[in-house]
Amino acid sequence: MIVGFIGLGIMGRPMAKNLINAGYKLVVYDKYARVDDLTALGAEGAASCKETAARSDVLITMLPNSPHVKEAILGPGGVIEGIRPGSTVIDMSSIAPAVSQEVALALKARGVNFLDAPVSGGEPKAVDATLAIMVGGEQGVFDSARPILEKMGSSVVLVGDVGAGNVTKLANQVIVALNIAAVSEAFTLAVKAGVKPQAVFDAIKGGLAGSTVMNAKVPMILDGNFKPGFRIELHIKDLQNALDTAHALGVPLPLTAGVMEILQALKVDGEAASDHGAIVRHYEKLSKTEVRKARP
Amino acid sequence: MIVGFIGLGIMGRPMAKNLINAGYKLVVYDKYARVDDLTALGAEGAASCKETAARSDVLITMLPNSPHVKEAILGPGGVIEGIRPGSTVIDMSSIAPAVSQEVALALKARGVNFLDAPVSGGEPKAVDATLAIMVGGEQGVFDSARPILEKMGSSVVLVGDVGAGNVTKLANQVIVALNIAAVSEAFTLAVKAGVKPQAVFDAIKGGLAGSTVMNAKVPMILDGNFKPGFRIELHIKDLQNALDTAHALGVPLPLTAGVMEILQALKVDGEAASDHGAIVRHYEKLSKTEVRKARP
Repeated sequence: MIVGFIGLGIMGRPMAKNLINAGYKLVVYDKYARVDDLTALGAEGAASCKETAARSDVLITMLPNSPHVKEAILGPGGVIEGIRPGSTVIDMSSIAPAVSQEVALALKARGVNFLDAPVSGGEPKAVDATLAIMVGGEQGVFDSARPILEKMGSSVVLVGDVGAGNVTKLANQVIVALNIAAVSEAFTLAVKAGVKPQAVFDAIKGGLAGSTVMNAKVPMILDGNFKPGFRIELHIKDLQNALDTAHALGVPLPLTAGVMEILQALKVDGEAASDHGAIVRHYEKLSKTEVRKARP
Repeated sequence: MIVGFIGLGIMGRPMAKNLINAGYKLVVYDKYARVDDLTALGAEGAASCKETAARSDVLITMLPNSPHVKEAILGPGGVIEGIRPGSTVIDMSSIAPAVSQEVALALKARGVNFLDAPVSGGEPKAVDATLAIMVGGEQGVFDSARPILEKMGSSVVLVGDVGAGNVTKLANQVIVALNIAAVSEAFTLAVKAGVKPQAVFDAIKGGLAGSTVMNAKVPMILDGNFKPGFRIELHIKDLQNALDTAHALGVPLPLTAGVMEILQALKVDGEAASDHGAIVRHYEKLSKTEVRKARP
Protein backbone atom coordinates (compact mmCIF):
# COMPACT_ATOMS: atom_id res chain seq x y z
CA MET A 1 0.00 0.00 0.00
CA ILE A 2 1.58 3.24 -1.18
CA VAL A 3 0.10 6.52 0.11
CA GLY A 4 0.58 9.72 -1.85
CA PHE A 5 0.54 12.96 0.17
CA ILE A 6 0.13 16.37 -1.47
CA GLY A 7 0.34 19.51 0.70
CA LEU A 8 3.02 19.47 3.41
CA GLY A 9 2.28 22.64 5.38
CA ILE A 10 1.79 23.18 9.11
CA MET A 11 -0.86 20.44 9.19
CA GLY A 12 0.07 18.13 6.32
CA ARG A 13 3.71 17.64 7.29
CA PRO A 14 3.13 16.15 10.78
CA MET A 15 0.22 14.11 9.42
CA ALA A 16 2.51 12.63 6.73
CA LYS A 17 5.16 11.91 9.36
CA ASN A 18 2.64 10.00 11.43
CA LEU A 19 1.83 7.83 8.40
CA ILE A 20 5.53 7.13 7.82
CA ASN A 21 5.96 6.30 11.52
CA ALA A 22 3.01 3.91 11.24
CA GLY A 23 4.85 2.01 8.51
CA TYR A 24 3.20 3.32 5.35
CA LYS A 25 5.31 3.85 2.23
CA LEU A 26 4.80 7.50 1.22
CA VAL A 27 5.22 9.46 -2.00
CA VAL A 28 5.13 13.18 -1.17
CA TYR A 29 4.75 16.42 -3.10
CA ASP A 30 4.36 20.10 -2.26
CA LYS A 31 4.26 22.85 -4.87
CA TYR A 32 6.33 25.22 -2.69
CA ALA A 33 7.85 23.47 0.34
CA ARG A 34 10.91 21.22 0.60
CA VAL A 35 10.39 17.58 1.53
CA ASP A 36 13.93 16.66 2.71
CA ASP A 37 12.82 15.88 6.26
CA LEU A 38 10.25 13.43 4.92
CA THR A 39 12.57 11.72 2.42
CA ALA A 40 15.10 11.41 5.27
CA LEU A 41 12.45 9.36 7.06
CA GLY A 42 12.00 7.08 4.03
CA ALA A 43 9.37 8.88 1.93
CA GLU A 44 9.96 9.31 -1.80
CA GLY A 45 9.59 12.70 -3.43
CA ALA A 46 7.55 13.26 -6.59
CA ALA A 47 7.69 16.14 -9.09
CA SER A 48 4.00 16.86 -9.61
CA CYS A 49 0.49 16.07 -8.46
CA LYS A 50 0.08 13.80 -11.51
CA GLU A 51 3.23 11.81 -10.70
CA THR A 52 2.32 11.53 -7.01
CA ALA A 53 -1.07 10.12 -7.98
CA ALA A 54 0.38 7.72 -10.55
CA ARG A 55 2.61 6.15 -7.90
CA SER A 56 -0.08 5.86 -5.18
CA ASP A 57 -2.85 3.48 -4.17
CA VAL A 58 -4.39 6.07 -1.85
CA LEU A 59 -3.82 9.79 -2.41
CA ILE A 60 -4.24 12.36 0.38
CA THR A 61 -4.46 16.13 -0.18
CA MET A 62 -4.08 18.71 2.63
CA LEU A 63 -4.35 22.17 1.09
CA PRO A 64 -5.46 25.68 2.15
CA ASN A 65 -8.82 26.10 0.41
CA SER A 66 -11.17 25.09 -2.42
CA PRO A 67 -9.24 26.60 -5.37
CA HIS A 68 -6.02 24.82 -4.34
CA VAL A 69 -7.83 21.49 -4.12
CA LYS A 70 -9.50 21.96 -7.50
CA GLU A 71 -6.18 22.88 -9.10
CA ALA A 72 -4.23 20.02 -7.51
CA ILE A 73 -6.81 17.36 -8.37
CA LEU A 74 -8.58 18.56 -11.54
CA GLY A 75 -6.09 21.10 -12.98
CA PRO A 76 -3.42 20.56 -15.68
CA GLY A 77 -0.81 18.08 -14.44
CA GLY A 78 -3.22 17.25 -11.61
CA VAL A 79 -4.07 14.10 -9.70
CA ILE A 80 -6.83 13.16 -12.14
CA GLU A 81 -4.28 12.79 -14.97
CA GLY A 82 -2.20 10.25 -13.06
CA ILE A 83 -4.45 8.31 -10.77
CA ARG A 84 -5.45 4.71 -11.54
CA PRO A 85 -9.09 3.50 -11.53
CA GLY A 86 -9.93 1.79 -8.24
CA SER A 87 -7.71 4.15 -6.24
CA THR A 88 -9.02 6.44 -3.50
CA VAL A 89 -8.48 10.18 -3.10
CA ILE A 90 -8.95 11.56 0.44
CA ASP A 91 -9.09 15.34 0.61
CA MET A 92 -8.41 16.37 4.22
CA SER A 93 -8.46 20.12 3.48
CA SER A 94 -11.23 22.30 4.96
CA ILE A 95 -13.04 23.55 1.86
CA ALA A 96 -16.50 24.29 0.45
CA PRO A 97 -18.67 21.14 0.44
CA ALA A 98 -19.84 21.89 -3.10
CA VAL A 99 -16.23 21.66 -4.30
CA SER A 100 -15.83 18.30 -2.56
CA GLN A 101 -18.87 17.11 -4.50
CA GLU A 102 -17.58 18.53 -7.81
CA VAL A 103 -14.19 16.84 -7.38
CA ALA A 104 -15.81 13.55 -6.35
CA LEU A 105 -17.97 13.55 -9.45
CA ALA A 106 -15.02 14.15 -11.80
CA LEU A 107 -13.01 11.36 -10.11
CA LYS A 108 -15.95 8.96 -10.15
CA ALA A 109 -16.12 9.32 -13.96
CA ARG A 110 -12.57 7.84 -13.97
CA GLY A 111 -13.51 5.05 -11.56
CA VAL A 112 -11.72 6.73 -8.62
CA ASN A 113 -13.19 6.82 -5.08
CA PHE A 114 -13.33 10.03 -3.06
CA LEU A 115 -13.71 11.01 0.60
CA ASP A 116 -13.78 14.51 2.08
CA ALA A 117 -12.16 14.24 5.48
CA PRO A 118 -11.48 17.66 7.06
CA VAL A 119 -9.92 17.74 10.49
CA SER A 120 -10.29 19.67 13.70
CA GLY A 121 -7.68 20.22 16.40
CA GLY A 122 -4.90 22.26 14.81
CA GLU A 123 -1.15 21.68 14.69
CA PRO A 124 -0.70 20.17 18.18
CA LYS A 125 -3.24 17.43 17.45
CA ALA A 126 -1.80 16.89 13.97
CA VAL A 127 1.58 16.25 15.64
CA ASP A 128 0.08 13.96 18.30
CA ALA A 129 -2.13 12.12 15.76
CA THR A 130 -5.18 13.02 17.83
CA LEU A 131 -7.12 15.00 15.23
CA ALA A 132 -10.92 14.76 14.98
CA ILE A 133 -11.61 13.66 11.40
CA MET A 134 -15.09 14.22 9.91
CA VAL A 135 -15.58 12.08 6.83
CA GLY A 136 -18.05 12.26 3.94
CA GLY A 137 -18.36 9.46 1.39
CA GLU A 138 -19.52 5.90 0.80
CA GLN A 139 -19.42 3.41 3.68
CA GLY A 140 -17.23 0.90 1.78
CA VAL A 141 -14.68 3.52 0.78
CA PHE A 142 -14.65 4.83 4.35
CA ASP A 143 -14.12 1.33 5.76
CA SER A 144 -11.10 0.80 3.47
CA ALA A 145 -9.57 4.21 4.30
CA ARG A 146 -10.24 4.08 8.04
CA PRO A 147 -6.97 2.35 9.08
CA ILE A 148 -4.99 5.14 7.38
CA LEU A 149 -7.10 7.92 8.90
CA GLU A 150 -6.75 6.37 12.35
CA LYS A 151 -2.97 6.88 12.14
CA MET A 152 -3.63 10.64 12.06
CA GLY A 153 -6.64 11.10 14.34
CA SER A 154 -8.17 9.78 17.53
CA SER A 155 -11.76 10.35 16.35
CA VAL A 156 -12.68 9.24 12.82
CA VAL A 157 -16.42 9.54 12.08
CA LEU A 158 -18.38 8.97 8.85
CA VAL A 159 -21.00 11.73 8.93
CA GLY A 160 -22.71 11.26 5.54
CA ASP A 161 -22.17 11.35 1.79
CA VAL A 162 -19.41 13.26 -0.01
CA GLY A 163 -19.40 16.88 1.23
CA ALA A 164 -20.84 15.97 4.65
CA GLY A 165 -17.38 16.07 6.21
CA ASN A 166 -16.93 19.69 5.17
CA VAL A 167 -20.51 20.60 6.10
CA THR A 168 -19.81 19.26 9.59
CA LYS A 169 -16.53 21.18 9.76
CA LEU A 170 -18.33 24.39 8.75
CA ALA A 171 -20.98 23.78 11.44
CA ASN A 172 -18.14 23.33 13.92
CA GLN A 173 -16.45 26.56 12.86
CA VAL A 174 -19.69 28.58 13.03
CA ILE A 175 -20.21 27.42 16.62
CA VAL A 176 -16.60 28.02 17.68
CA ALA A 177 -16.52 31.58 16.27
CA LEU A 178 -19.83 32.52 17.88
CA ASN A 179 -18.93 30.91 21.22
CA ILE A 180 -15.69 32.93 21.32
CA ALA A 181 -17.61 36.11 20.52
CA ALA A 182 -20.17 35.23 23.22
CA VAL A 183 -17.45 34.86 25.85
CA SER A 184 -15.83 38.08 24.62
CA GLU A 185 -19.05 40.13 24.89
CA ALA A 186 -19.85 38.71 28.32
CA PHE A 187 -16.40 39.18 29.84
CA THR A 188 -15.89 42.66 28.41
CA LEU A 189 -19.22 43.67 29.94
CA ALA A 190 -18.32 42.12 33.30
CA VAL A 191 -14.89 43.74 33.43
CA LYS A 192 -16.15 47.19 32.52
CA ALA A 193 -18.81 46.74 35.23
CA GLY A 194 -15.95 46.22 37.69
CA VAL A 195 -16.25 42.47 38.27
CA LYS A 196 -13.10 40.32 38.24
CA PRO A 197 -13.18 38.04 35.17
CA GLN A 198 -11.75 35.11 37.13
CA ALA A 199 -14.71 35.35 39.54
CA VAL A 200 -17.17 35.35 36.63
CA PHE A 201 -15.38 32.37 35.07
CA ASP A 202 -15.47 30.41 38.34
CA ALA A 203 -19.14 31.25 38.94
CA ILE A 204 -20.54 30.34 35.50
CA LYS A 205 -18.28 27.71 33.91
CA GLY A 206 -20.12 24.83 35.59
CA GLY A 207 -23.59 25.99 34.44
CA LEU A 208 -25.47 26.30 31.15
CA ALA A 209 -22.98 28.92 29.90
CA GLY A 210 -20.10 26.45 30.17
CA SER A 211 -18.25 25.47 27.01
CA THR A 212 -15.00 24.05 25.73
CA VAL A 213 -14.35 27.48 24.19
CA MET A 214 -14.74 29.14 27.61
CA ASN A 215 -12.34 26.70 29.25
CA ALA A 216 -9.79 27.02 26.44
CA LYS A 217 -9.98 30.74 25.62
CA VAL A 218 -10.73 32.59 28.90
CA PRO A 219 -7.33 31.66 30.39
CA MET A 220 -5.65 32.85 27.14
CA ILE A 221 -7.67 36.09 27.23
CA LEU A 222 -6.71 36.72 30.87
CA ASP A 223 -3.04 36.13 29.98
CA GLY A 224 -3.28 38.35 26.88
CA ASN A 225 -1.90 35.35 24.97
CA PHE A 226 -3.07 35.22 21.35
CA LYS A 227 -0.36 32.98 19.91
CA PRO A 228 -2.12 30.60 17.50
CA GLY A 229 -3.69 27.97 17.95
CA PHE A 230 -6.02 28.73 15.10
CA ARG A 231 -5.41 31.89 13.10
CA ILE A 232 -8.07 34.52 12.46
CA GLU A 233 -7.32 34.43 8.71
CA LEU A 234 -8.18 30.71 8.64
CA HIS A 235 -11.41 31.28 10.54
CA ILE A 236 -12.28 33.98 7.98
CA LYS A 237 -11.79 31.39 5.23
CA ASP A 238 -14.03 28.88 7.01
CA LEU A 239 -16.79 31.41 7.71
CA GLN A 240 -16.69 32.57 4.09
CA ASN A 241 -17.21 28.96 3.02
CA ALA A 242 -20.00 28.61 5.61
CA LEU A 243 -21.76 31.77 4.41
CA ASP A 244 -21.34 30.86 0.70
CA THR A 245 -22.64 27.35 1.33
CA ALA A 246 -25.53 28.58 3.47
CA HIS A 247 -26.59 31.25 0.99
CA ALA A 248 -26.46 28.81 -1.93
CA LEU A 249 -28.73 26.46 0.03
CA GLY A 250 -31.06 29.22 1.26
CA VAL A 251 -30.02 29.46 4.91
CA PRO A 252 -29.54 33.02 6.23
CA LEU A 253 -26.90 33.10 9.02
CA PRO A 254 -27.17 36.60 10.52
CA LEU A 255 -24.97 36.02 13.58
CA THR A 256 -22.27 34.20 11.61
CA ALA A 257 -22.28 37.20 9.28
CA GLY A 258 -21.87 39.45 12.32
CA VAL A 259 -18.87 37.58 13.71
CA MET A 260 -17.38 37.48 10.19
CA GLU A 261 -17.35 41.30 10.15
CA ILE A 262 -15.62 41.29 13.55
CA LEU A 263 -12.92 38.97 12.12
CA GLN A 264 -12.61 41.32 9.12
CA ALA A 265 -12.13 44.29 11.48
CA LEU A 266 -9.42 42.37 13.34
CA LYS A 267 -7.68 41.59 10.04
CA VAL A 268 -7.67 45.32 9.24
CA ASP A 269 -6.14 45.83 12.70
CA GLY A 270 -3.22 43.51 11.85
CA GLU A 271 -4.52 40.50 13.79
CA ALA A 272 -4.85 38.07 10.84
CA ALA A 273 -2.18 35.77 12.25
CA SER A 274 -3.41 35.99 15.88
CA ASP A 275 -5.34 33.21 17.53
CA HIS A 276 -9.12 33.53 17.10
CA GLY A 277 -9.29 34.18 20.86
CA ALA A 278 -8.22 37.70 19.84
CA ILE A 279 -11.89 38.30 18.98
CA VAL A 280 -11.95 39.75 22.50
CA ARG A 281 -9.56 42.48 21.29
CA HIS A 282 -12.30 43.83 19.04
CA TYR A 283 -14.51 44.32 22.11
CA GLU A 284 -11.66 45.76 24.14
CA LYS A 285 -11.15 48.32 21.40
CA LEU A 286 -14.86 49.09 21.01
CA SER A 287 -15.23 49.66 24.75
CA LYS A 288 -11.76 51.05 25.55
CA THR A 289 -11.16 48.30 28.13
CA GLU A 290 -8.48 45.67 28.62
CA VAL A 291 -9.92 42.46 29.97
CA ARG A 292 -6.58 41.00 31.04
CA LYS A 293 -5.77 44.02 33.22
CA ALA A 294 -8.80 43.20 35.37
CA ARG A 295 -7.24 39.94 36.51
CA PRO A 296 -6.69 39.14 40.03
CA MET B 1 -33.62 33.63 63.12
CA ILE B 2 -36.73 34.62 61.16
CA VAL B 3 -36.49 34.78 57.38
CA GLY B 4 -38.93 36.94 55.42
CA PHE B 5 -39.67 35.85 51.85
CA ILE B 6 -41.33 38.14 49.32
CA GLY B 7 -42.19 36.78 45.85
CA LEU B 8 -43.54 33.25 45.74
CA GLY B 9 -43.69 32.49 42.04
CA ILE B 10 -42.32 29.55 40.05
CA MET B 11 -38.88 30.08 41.58
CA GLY B 12 -39.57 31.72 44.95
CA ARG B 13 -42.11 29.18 46.18
CA PRO B 14 -39.86 26.08 46.03
CA MET B 15 -36.94 28.13 47.39
CA ALA B 16 -39.09 29.19 50.39
CA LYS B 17 -40.16 25.57 50.90
CA ASN B 18 -36.54 24.48 51.03
CA LEU B 19 -35.87 27.04 53.78
CA ILE B 20 -38.88 25.78 55.78
CA ASN B 21 -37.70 22.19 55.30
CA ALA B 22 -34.27 23.23 56.57
CA GLY B 23 -35.84 24.43 59.81
CA TYR B 24 -36.05 28.20 59.27
CA LYS B 25 -39.03 30.11 60.60
CA LEU B 26 -40.53 31.95 57.59
CA VAL B 27 -42.77 34.99 57.18
CA VAL B 28 -44.07 35.06 53.60
CA TYR B 29 -45.79 37.57 51.35
CA ASP B 30 -46.79 37.74 47.70
CA LYS B 31 -48.74 40.63 46.20
CA TYR B 32 -50.80 38.30 43.99
CA ALA B 33 -50.36 34.64 44.90
CA ARG B 34 -51.90 32.62 47.75
CA VAL B 35 -49.55 31.27 50.41
CA ASP B 36 -51.75 28.50 51.92
CA ASP B 37 -49.34 25.73 50.98
CA LEU B 38 -46.53 27.54 52.80
CA THR B 39 -48.54 28.35 55.95
CA ALA B 40 -49.63 24.69 55.98
CA LEU B 41 -45.91 23.87 56.28
CA GLY B 42 -45.52 26.28 59.22
CA ALA B 43 -44.75 29.62 57.59
CA GLU B 44 -46.64 32.71 58.75
CA GLY B 45 -48.34 35.00 56.26
CA ALA B 46 -47.88 38.77 56.27
CA ALA B 47 -50.05 41.48 54.70
CA SER B 48 -47.42 43.69 53.09
CA CYS B 49 -43.76 44.07 52.25
CA LYS B 50 -43.40 46.45 55.20
CA GLU B 51 -44.92 43.95 57.65
CA THR B 52 -42.85 41.06 56.27
CA ALA B 53 -39.69 43.12 56.78
CA ALA B 54 -40.68 44.26 60.28
CA ARG B 55 -41.04 40.62 61.40
CA SER B 56 -37.77 39.37 59.80
CA ASP B 57 -34.06 39.22 60.65
CA VAL B 58 -33.17 38.38 57.07
CA LEU B 59 -35.44 39.36 54.17
CA ILE B 60 -35.33 37.64 50.77
CA THR B 61 -36.96 38.97 47.60
CA MET B 62 -37.50 36.88 44.45
CA LEU B 63 -39.30 39.05 41.89
CA PRO B 64 -39.55 39.34 38.09
CA ASN B 65 -37.45 42.42 37.28
CA SER B 66 -35.94 45.70 38.44
CA PRO B 67 -39.18 47.76 38.80
CA HIS B 68 -40.78 45.09 41.01
CA VAL B 69 -37.72 45.00 43.28
CA LYS B 70 -37.61 48.79 43.57
CA GLU B 71 -41.32 48.94 44.39
CA ALA B 72 -41.20 46.11 46.93
CA ILE B 73 -38.15 47.44 48.76
CA LEU B 74 -38.19 51.23 48.28
CA GLY B 75 -41.84 51.92 47.36
CA PRO B 76 -44.72 53.00 49.65
CA GLY B 77 -45.44 50.27 52.21
CA GLY B 78 -42.16 48.70 51.17
CA VAL B 79 -39.46 46.74 52.96
CA ILE B 80 -37.52 49.91 53.81
CA GLU B 81 -40.39 51.19 55.97
CA GLY B 82 -40.44 48.10 58.17
CA ILE B 83 -36.94 46.67 58.30
CA ARG B 84 -34.78 47.07 61.41
CA PRO B 85 -31.19 48.38 61.32
CA GLY B 86 -28.69 45.52 61.39
CA SER B 87 -30.94 43.30 59.27
CA THR B 88 -29.95 41.94 55.86
CA VAL B 89 -31.90 42.10 52.60
CA ILE B 90 -30.99 39.48 49.96
CA ASP B 91 -32.45 40.16 46.52
CA MET B 92 -32.35 36.92 44.55
CA SER B 93 -34.17 38.34 41.51
CA SER B 94 -32.32 38.71 38.19
CA ILE B 95 -32.34 42.46 37.63
CA ALA B 96 -30.20 45.37 36.41
CA PRO B 97 -27.00 45.68 38.48
CA ALA B 98 -27.49 49.47 38.73
CA VAL B 99 -30.81 48.88 40.53
CA SER B 100 -29.10 46.48 42.96
CA GLN B 101 -26.65 49.28 43.75
CA GLU B 102 -29.42 51.89 44.11
CA VAL B 103 -31.40 49.69 46.51
CA ALA B 104 -28.26 48.83 48.50
CA LEU B 105 -27.43 52.51 48.95
CA ALA B 106 -30.92 53.40 50.21
CA LEU B 107 -30.87 50.48 52.66
CA LYS B 108 -27.35 51.30 53.86
CA ALA B 109 -28.58 54.77 54.87
CA ARG B 110 -30.94 52.93 57.30
CA GLY B 111 -28.16 50.65 58.57
CA VAL B 112 -29.45 47.66 56.58
CA ASN B 113 -27.11 45.23 54.77
CA PHE B 114 -27.75 44.14 51.17
CA LEU B 115 -26.68 41.31 48.87
CA ASP B 116 -27.69 40.76 45.25
CA ALA B 117 -27.84 37.02 44.75
CA PRO B 118 -29.41 36.04 41.42
CA VAL B 119 -29.66 32.37 40.60
CA SER B 120 -29.16 30.12 37.60
CA GLY B 121 -30.72 26.72 37.00
CA GLY B 122 -34.47 27.31 36.67
CA GLU B 123 -37.42 25.66 38.39
CA PRO B 124 -36.01 22.08 38.61
CA LYS B 125 -32.92 23.29 40.47
CA ALA B 126 -35.01 25.60 42.67
CA VAL B 127 -37.03 22.52 43.69
CA ASP B 128 -33.91 20.40 44.25
CA ALA B 129 -32.08 23.22 46.09
CA THR B 130 -29.24 22.91 43.56
CA LEU B 131 -29.30 26.45 42.15
CA ALA B 132 -26.09 28.28 41.25
CA ILE B 133 -26.17 31.49 43.30
CA MET B 134 -23.96 34.43 42.24
CA VAL B 135 -23.60 36.91 45.07
CA GLY B 136 -22.52 40.56 45.18
CA GLY B 137 -21.84 42.36 48.47
CA GLU B 138 -19.50 42.65 51.44
CA GLN B 139 -17.58 39.58 52.60
CA GLY B 140 -18.92 39.77 56.17
CA VAL B 141 -22.54 40.06 55.06
CA PHE B 142 -21.99 37.20 52.63
CA ASP B 143 -20.48 35.01 55.35
CA SER B 144 -23.51 35.59 57.60
CA ALA B 145 -26.02 34.87 54.81
CA ARG B 146 -24.21 31.89 53.37
CA PRO B 147 -25.88 29.19 55.53
CA ILE B 148 -29.31 30.38 54.34
CA LEU B 149 -28.26 30.53 50.67
CA GLU B 150 -26.77 27.04 50.89
CA LYS B 151 -30.24 25.69 51.72
CA MET B 152 -31.36 26.82 48.23
CA GLY B 153 -28.30 26.23 46.07
CA SER B 154 -25.42 23.83 45.57
CA SER B 155 -23.02 26.55 44.34
CA VAL B 156 -22.88 29.82 46.31
CA VAL B 157 -20.11 32.16 45.12
CA LEU B 158 -19.23 35.72 46.17
CA VAL B 159 -18.22 37.37 42.90
CA GLY B 160 -17.65 40.97 44.02
CA ASP B 161 -19.34 44.05 45.46
CA VAL B 162 -23.07 44.80 45.31
CA GLY B 163 -24.25 44.45 41.70
CA ALA B 164 -21.57 41.91 40.79
CA GLY B 165 -24.04 39.05 41.24
CA ASN B 166 -26.32 40.50 38.59
CA VAL B 167 -23.40 41.45 36.31
CA THR B 168 -22.30 37.81 36.44
CA LYS B 169 -25.84 36.62 35.75
CA LEU B 170 -26.06 38.94 32.72
CA ALA B 171 -22.70 37.65 31.43
CA ASN B 172 -24.10 34.13 31.83
CA GLN B 173 -27.28 34.98 29.92
CA VAL B 174 -25.38 36.67 27.07
CA ILE B 175 -23.31 33.53 26.60
CA VAL B 176 -26.26 31.14 26.84
CA ALA B 177 -28.34 33.06 24.27
CA LEU B 178 -25.45 33.31 21.80
CA ASN B 179 -24.44 29.67 22.27
CA ILE B 180 -28.02 28.57 21.51
CA ALA B 181 -28.05 30.77 18.40
CA ALA B 182 -24.66 29.34 17.37
CA VAL B 183 -25.94 25.78 17.60
CA SER B 184 -29.11 26.81 15.74
CA GLU B 185 -27.22 28.41 12.83
CA ALA B 186 -24.84 25.46 12.56
CA PHE B 187 -27.46 22.72 12.71
CA THR B 188 -29.87 24.47 10.34
CA LEU B 189 -27.02 24.79 7.83
CA ALA B 190 -26.03 21.15 8.25
CA VAL B 191 -29.58 19.86 7.89
CA LYS B 192 -30.33 21.94 4.79
CA ALA B 193 -27.04 20.63 3.35
CA GLY B 194 -28.42 17.11 3.81
CA VAL B 195 -26.34 15.98 6.79
CA LYS B 196 -28.06 14.18 9.69
CA PRO B 197 -27.96 16.41 12.79
CA GLN B 198 -27.23 13.48 15.09
CA ALA B 199 -24.09 12.72 13.04
CA VAL B 200 -22.96 16.35 13.31
CA PHE B 201 -23.64 16.31 17.07
CA ASP B 202 -21.67 13.09 17.56
CA ALA B 203 -18.77 14.34 15.42
CA ILE B 204 -18.29 17.78 17.03
CA LYS B 205 -19.53 17.64 20.63
CA GLY B 206 -16.17 16.38 21.94
CA GLY B 207 -14.15 19.14 20.26
CA LEU B 208 -13.75 22.92 20.59
CA ALA B 209 -17.40 23.45 19.54
CA GLY B 210 -18.64 21.43 22.52
CA SER B 211 -20.77 23.18 25.14
CA THR B 212 -23.28 22.58 27.87
CA VAL B 213 -25.82 24.35 25.65
CA MET B 214 -25.13 21.89 22.83
CA ASN B 215 -25.55 18.88 25.11
CA ALA B 216 -28.73 20.29 26.68
CA LYS B 217 -30.47 21.85 23.68
CA VAL B 218 -29.61 19.70 20.61
CA PRO B 219 -31.58 16.71 21.98
CA MET B 220 -34.56 19.06 22.66
CA ILE B 221 -34.26 20.53 19.16
CA LEU B 222 -34.18 17.06 17.58
CA ASP B 223 -37.27 16.10 19.59
CA GLY B 224 -39.04 19.37 18.69
CA ASN B 225 -39.48 19.81 22.46
CA PHE B 226 -39.61 23.47 23.52
CA LYS B 227 -41.35 23.06 26.87
CA PRO B 228 -39.60 25.46 29.26
CA GLY B 229 -37.03 25.24 30.93
CA PHE B 230 -36.27 28.90 30.55
CA ARG B 231 -38.81 31.02 28.71
CA ILE B 232 -37.94 33.29 25.79
CA GLU B 233 -39.72 36.22 27.48
CA LEU B 234 -37.39 35.90 30.48
CA HIS B 235 -34.33 35.77 28.25
CA ILE B 236 -35.60 38.95 26.55
CA LYS B 237 -35.76 40.60 29.98
CA ASP B 238 -32.19 39.53 30.81
CA LEU B 239 -30.76 40.63 27.46
CA GLN B 240 -32.52 44.00 27.80
CA ASN B 241 -30.83 44.41 31.19
CA ALA B 242 -27.51 43.31 29.65
CA LEU B 243 -27.80 45.79 26.77
CA ASP B 244 -28.94 48.65 29.05
CA THR B 245 -26.11 47.95 31.48
CA ALA B 246 -23.54 47.61 28.70
CA HIS B 247 -24.61 50.79 26.94
CA ALA B 248 -24.58 52.78 30.19
CA LEU B 249 -21.01 51.57 30.79
CA GLY B 250 -19.87 52.10 27.20
CA VAL B 251 -19.70 48.50 25.99
CA PRO B 252 -21.23 47.86 22.55
CA LEU B 253 -22.60 44.28 22.29
CA PRO B 254 -23.41 43.81 18.59
CA LEU B 255 -24.05 40.06 18.67
CA THR B 256 -26.14 40.21 21.85
CA ALA B 257 -28.20 42.87 20.08
CA GLY B 258 -28.55 40.48 17.12
CA VAL B 259 -29.82 37.57 19.21
CA MET B 260 -32.15 39.98 21.07
CA GLU B 261 -33.85 40.78 17.77
CA ILE B 262 -34.22 37.05 17.07
CA LEU B 263 -35.93 36.64 20.47
CA GLN B 264 -38.18 39.59 19.63
CA ALA B 265 -39.12 37.95 16.31
CA LEU B 266 -39.96 34.72 18.19
CA LYS B 267 -42.14 36.69 20.62
CA VAL B 268 -44.04 38.15 17.65
CA ASP B 269 -44.47 34.57 16.42
CA GLY B 270 -46.14 33.54 19.69
CA GLU B 271 -43.11 31.80 21.21
CA ALA B 272 -42.71 34.02 24.31
CA ALA B 273 -43.51 31.14 26.65
CA SER B 274 -41.41 28.55 24.75
CA ASP B 275 -38.03 27.38 25.96
CA HIS B 276 -35.15 29.48 24.62
CA GLY B 277 -34.09 26.42 22.63
CA ALA B 278 -36.85 27.57 20.26
CA ILE B 279 -34.31 30.05 18.87
CA VAL B 280 -33.78 27.29 16.29
CA ARG B 281 -37.38 27.87 15.11
CA HIS B 282 -36.36 31.32 13.89
CA TYR B 283 -33.77 29.71 11.64
CA GLU B 284 -36.15 26.97 10.55
CA LYS B 285 -38.59 29.67 9.47
CA LEU B 286 -35.92 31.79 7.75
CA SER B 287 -34.65 28.81 5.78
CA LYS B 288 -37.93 26.88 5.39
CA THR B 289 -36.38 23.79 7.01
CA GLU B 290 -37.33 21.64 9.99
CA VAL B 291 -34.28 20.42 11.84
CA ARG B 292 -36.13 17.72 13.80
CA LYS B 293 -37.43 16.08 10.60
CA ALA B 294 -33.84 15.35 9.61
CA ARG B 295 -33.34 12.98 12.54
CA PRO B 296 -32.44 9.86 13.18
